[in-house]
Amino acid sequence: MTVTDRHYDREFVRTFFTSPTAVEGEEDSARLLESAARLRGMEAPDVWVPDNEDATAPSMREEGVENIVRVVGEHGDEFPGEIHPRVVWHRDDPGTRHTGFEHMRAIADPDEGAGEQVDGFVIPEVGDLDDWKKADEFLTIVESEHGLPEGSLSMSVIVESAAAEIGLNRLREEMGKPSNNLERLFLLVDGEVDYTKDMRAMTPTGALPEWETLRHNTSRGASAAGLIAVDGPYDDIRDVAGYRERMEANRALGMTGIWSLTPGQVEVANRAPLPPASGHWLLEVGDESVELTTDDSGTLVYEGDDADLEQTAADTYRLTIDGRTEEVDADELHERLVDRTSYVPGLDDIVDSMEEFEAAKEAGKGAIAMTRDATLQLGDTAVDVSRDRMWDEATYQAAQTPILVFQDVYEHRPDQHDELAETYGADVVERATQVGN
Amino acid sequence: MTVTDRHYDREFVRTFFTSPTAVEGEEDSARLLESAARLRGMEAPDVWVPDNEDATAPSMREEGVENIVRVVGEHGDEFPGEIHPRVVWHRDDPGTRHTGFEHMRAIADPDEGAGEQVDGFVIPEVGDLDDWKKADEFLTIVESEHGLPEGSLSMSVIVESAAAEIGLNRLREEMGKPSNNLERLFLLVDGEVDYTKDMRAMTPTGALPEWETLRHNTSRGASAAGLIAVDGPYDDIRDVAGYRERMEANRALGMTGIWSLTPGQVEVANRAPLPPASGHWLLEVGDESVELTTDDSGTLVYEGDDADLEQTAADTYRLTIDGRTEEVDADELHERLVDRTSYVPGLDDIVDSMEEFEAAKEAGKGAIAMTRDATLQLGDTAVDVSRDRMWDEATYQAAQTPILVFQDVYEHRPDQHDELAETYGADVVERATQVGN
Amino acid sequence: MTVTDRHYDREFVRTFFTSPTAVEGEEDSARLLESAARLRGMEAPDVWVPDNEDATAPSMREEGVENIVRVVGEHGDEFPGEIHPRVVWHRDDPGTRHTGFEHMRAIADPDEGAGEQVDGFVIPEVGDLDDWKKADEFLTIVESEHGLPEGSLSMSVIVESAAAEIGLNRLREEMGKPSNNLERLFLLVDGEVDYTKDMRAMTPTGALPEWETLRHNTSRGASAAGLIAVDGPYDDIRDVAGYRERMEANRALGMTGIWSLTPGQVEVANRAPLPPASGHWLLEVGDESVELTTDDSGTLVYEGDDADLEQTAADTYRLTIDGRTEEVDADELHERLVDRTSYVPGLDDIVDSMEEFEAAKEAGKGAIAMTRDATLQLGDTAVDVSRDRMWDEATYQAAQTPILVFQDVYEHRPDQHDELAETYGADVVERATQVGN
Repeated sequence: MTVTDRHYDREFVRTFFTSPTAVEGEEDSARLLESAARLRGMEAPDVWVPDNEDATAPSMREEGVENIVRVVGEHGDEFPGEIHPRVVWHRDDPGTRHTGFEHMRAIADPDEGAGEQVDGFVIPEVGDLDDWKKADEFLTIVESEHGLPEGSLSMSVIVESAAAEIGLNRLREEMGKPSNNLERLFLLVDGEVDYTKDMRAMTPTGALPEWETLRHNTSRGASAAGLIAVDGPYDDIRDVAGYRERMEANRALGMTGIWSLTPGQVEVANRAPLPPASGHWLLEVGDESVELTTDDSGTLVYEGDDADLEQTAADTYRLTIDGRTEEVDADELHERLVDRTSYVPGLDDIVDSMEEFEAAKEAGKGAIAMTRDATLQLGDTAVDVSRDRMWDEATYQAAQTPILVFQDVYEHRPDQHDELAETYGADVVERATQVGN
Repeated sequence: MTVTDRHYDREFVRTFFTSPTAVEGEEDSARLLESAARLRGMEAPDVWVPDNEDATAPSMREEGVENIVRVVGEHGDEFPGEIHPRVVWHRDDPGTRHTGFEHMRAIADPDEGAGEQVDGFVIPEVGDLDDWKKADEFLTIVESEHGLPEGSLSMSVIVESAAAEIGLNRLREEMGKPSNNLERLFLLVDGEVDYTKDMRAMTPTGALPEWETLRHNTSRGASAAGLIAVDGPYDDIRDVAGYRERMEANRALGMTGIWSLTPGQVEVANRAPLPPASGHWLLEVGDESVELTTDDSGTLVYEGDDADLEQTAADTYRLTIDGRTEEVDADELHERLVDRTSYVPGLDDIVDSMEEFEAAKEAGKGAIAMTRDATLQLGDTAVDVSRDRMWDEATYQAAQTPILVFQDVYEHRPDQHDELAETYGADVVERATQVGN
Repeated sequence: MTVTDRHYDREFVRTFFTSPTAVEGEEDSARLLESAARLRGMEAPDVWVPDNEDATAPSMREEGVENIVRVVGEHGDEFPGEIHPRVVWHRDDPGTRHTGFEHMRAIADPDEGAGEQVDGFVIPEVGDLDDWKKADEFLTIVESEHGLPEGSLSMSVIVESAAAEIGLNRLREEMGKPSNNLERLFLLVDGEVDYTKDMRAMTPTGALPEWETLRHNTSRGASAAGLIAVDGPYDDIRDVAGYRERMEANRALGMTGIWSLTPGQVEVANRAPLPPASGHWLLEVGDESVELTTDDSGTLVYEGDDADLEQTAADTYRLTIDGRTEEVDADELHERLVDRTSYVPGLDDIVDSMEEFEAAKEAGKGAIAMTRDATLQLGDTAVDVSRDRMWDEATYQAAQTPILVFQDVYEHRPDQHDELAETYGADVVERATQVGN
């Protein structure tokens, strides 16, 4: 075993869903906890976070602890995801840390309802690694008091200070040291609102900066230490397109998971890292990649006004893209179109490619060309396009990540099997669970 | 007290203004020092740097030390900002370091003119932290020789080597160690010209790379260690728009301050981090955010050609933006416009929002919606737009940064009070100094 | 000597060219090695890498070692670049590391053919610095066994894991420690395919992410430790424009070298970091920088449709750029054009500027203005443009990097002298080799 082996069942976490633990003025202050506990399938998160910190008013947090104990005790057994309550903590305030300690003791008590159901705790506002070790030590004491094995409660942190971001560089080496139980670490979650405050950053409209370097560093820290990186909340819950874009950018950084504030966001974020049900072609025009539609005969059709093609002689074409027109022969045309097109594979395509490469490897080949053909119509002219890509062992392994996500979901979320079969078809699901093993 | 408490009066530094200490061929070689020492108000920097390094020819640097002693001795007492001369230093050259030491000894001598007026020194060309410690040790010796308390002279460094950039990661932990006085650190200033040389970077035109990762890391190092980050010089002093853009990008990284080469740049850079006197709306069209104008009736008007709106039926609109036209109902229209618009709050708006949130918190509410309404005219059609944003404690605190800048300026720069009152009105200035306390 | 003095002859490496060591099913499995060994001039790389890892099928790697021994033994003496075979290695697999050790022993054996010719080894898939030290120790043992001085074999690594990226921060301080010979380090090479897998990153089309932060960090690590940074392979070997763009972006990060997969890529990559043979002007229109052509009279002509100029009165011009038209006077016009134009200096221009600055420095001046004049024709109207830039010692040194590259190439690659003379003219080459010394 190496340190980068993950210490958890889950290899990936798509969704981190927070619920207020106690809401003032409601008949049942635990109403939101209760309804979250009943989520199933694509609306249920991989990690559910009863949030006794920012989502809950300070005056309600003692009642919040009681609500967690009761609601998680009652429903935790049936809940399809993991359960990681967030408690209060602050690197600069020992009083807050003490309160967080007492809340963890109470929630983890196996003689009360929630003890058996809680997988770990989320610690916000951590500072440098010595601060993380304080939370780790409190968890060790809680385990000792309650007769739990050391390290059995996991710990996730919110990275929302410069000191915590810098600490990510040393996680891997600190996790092996004998005087801590940092192997209990699970999720590294970015918290951009408080990070913005800690960095004292300002934008004219008050919008949050992108913080791409923070997200890179969090993802990198997770990769080096065998942990899982999760992005912070996306506040504008109506903006589904924006949420999807953010997740796509995150995945390109190696950050598969994201915070969700509503069951609607959970569903979008549970589906986003899984490959699409069917593949499609893109054409680059303007600054965009436009999805091509397929007509009845299977020809790809570009329906916009930014590209046109005309055949002017046997081997001469007039190609207009982005306002530039040029005369090209068939080979040049093909080259232009290969440059401008790309293919987004569906789950079945990925499975096909992996199986094809595995068969080739079996037959003693180290690298093969994967070819994808299509007929593309621009204006009134249709031409054939053939794209190929060399696959070797490294390509195969890098392409495998979406399949590993899929398999991890399939293994740990039986409550989503029906929805997966509905989306992809039972046959593709079956093959996707087998490929690469 | 935690390490991230700042050790200085100033919480923010907007401007770092360098002056040559001795210019050859002038009747009075200290002429530029003299005129800088007389700056007041918005033209006077937060930190004035008599520059005995790159701005002064090597042959003039001994005379430069004498000029600093004389001019700072004469005018320092009246100067409204802090005074931090830059001396020579190089990580790879002990001779240069020795000279820097001797210059600091001479300038800090309390029996000569400048000793009492100098707040600290700026050390360029530092390498890894062991190199920073050499400069720190020389300052400790200077303090010892002159009977000053250890750590009373501050030290700022120019981050202009890869080794220094990497060193930023360890500042926080090194600053607490008993064998150094690194708590004297004040500013971390990027020096992109020499950094470009140290990184051996090249661009076709010889223009400097953006070095955004360097600026992120410097800002983050400052945040983790309780210091203040400042960006390097902007050479094209005629390009005010470019200077403003750079500062806006810097603030989004948490870097509030910037180098200034002229009193004109000082004035622009002193004003830039302060909120505008009045708010305004932006509309996203093309790749730009266009400021909307307000007509006599208070309606926001977009005057460009890239957006148009027409009402075609009771609940049907034809919206054209960026060359795309779509038919939408009133709800969809509102959603599109909310997505496309944003509001840049003025100082009064920020004060209003903070006061509103404080009142809500007082009344026991943890989160409230802040709403902003406007009537927007596109083409000949006017529609109402209502944007809201949830504020909780974290939003409040992140939004507070511009107010903290304002209050810091107000406290430390009485010479700018008149100009602030002229810009914002005395009433808003008064409320802005009180809010949040 | 400081740690950042480089330990190698080469100050820069432009090209890192890998060849499979043994190809199955060929009559001569070493055919590709043989042909690579015969490359000369611009098609020959600065560093040639007989690749016994990913480019060679696992079943062929023992034969690959024999081929390296034979072919490098036969041709190495004549080969104009350095020779650094890549062996197998993996941070998580001791069996692979052991095999890599045995392969290095065999290849470095001075009693066999290649021993004398091999400059060092390339170690892929390294993890944190303790893993780098294992490879270093194996090299020390190989040196000991073969009677070579400690540290005489260089070591280059492929940075393709998060742990290795983080390790870059500590290279500088680890390299001085008495229990290792890490001073043997030479190249830090990014490996984006495996890094993508290690980070578990995903993109919709399977294209590699840009990984700009990784490249910054690799370049920075090289700068801090006196090493040389090289970017990974660019798979689409037909896309020469894309390859050039990637290299330009790399150079702006301080990363001069890049992997090459074919002699064609080698030639492009050997030429890319050298200044162009003659300078040219750029005009910014749209989102692009368009190269201006020069007509017979030496006037710069913009031939596109995105800018137009008309003189409407004695001191009034109508300037149209990017769809916006404004009336300006001559001064404003000049300012607009200065903002919109830039000059890409040729090798002769850089030499001229450096010589001019050196002469000024000799004459006691610390800073001079460098002026560049041109006549620019937009539409039917021609106007004079004069750009100036202040040069001081720091500007001079930062501008010197392309000359240092040129001089390094000239010194170490006599086989490219003819092609350099052909490109630049013998006189410019002669001056470029002398300037700055």
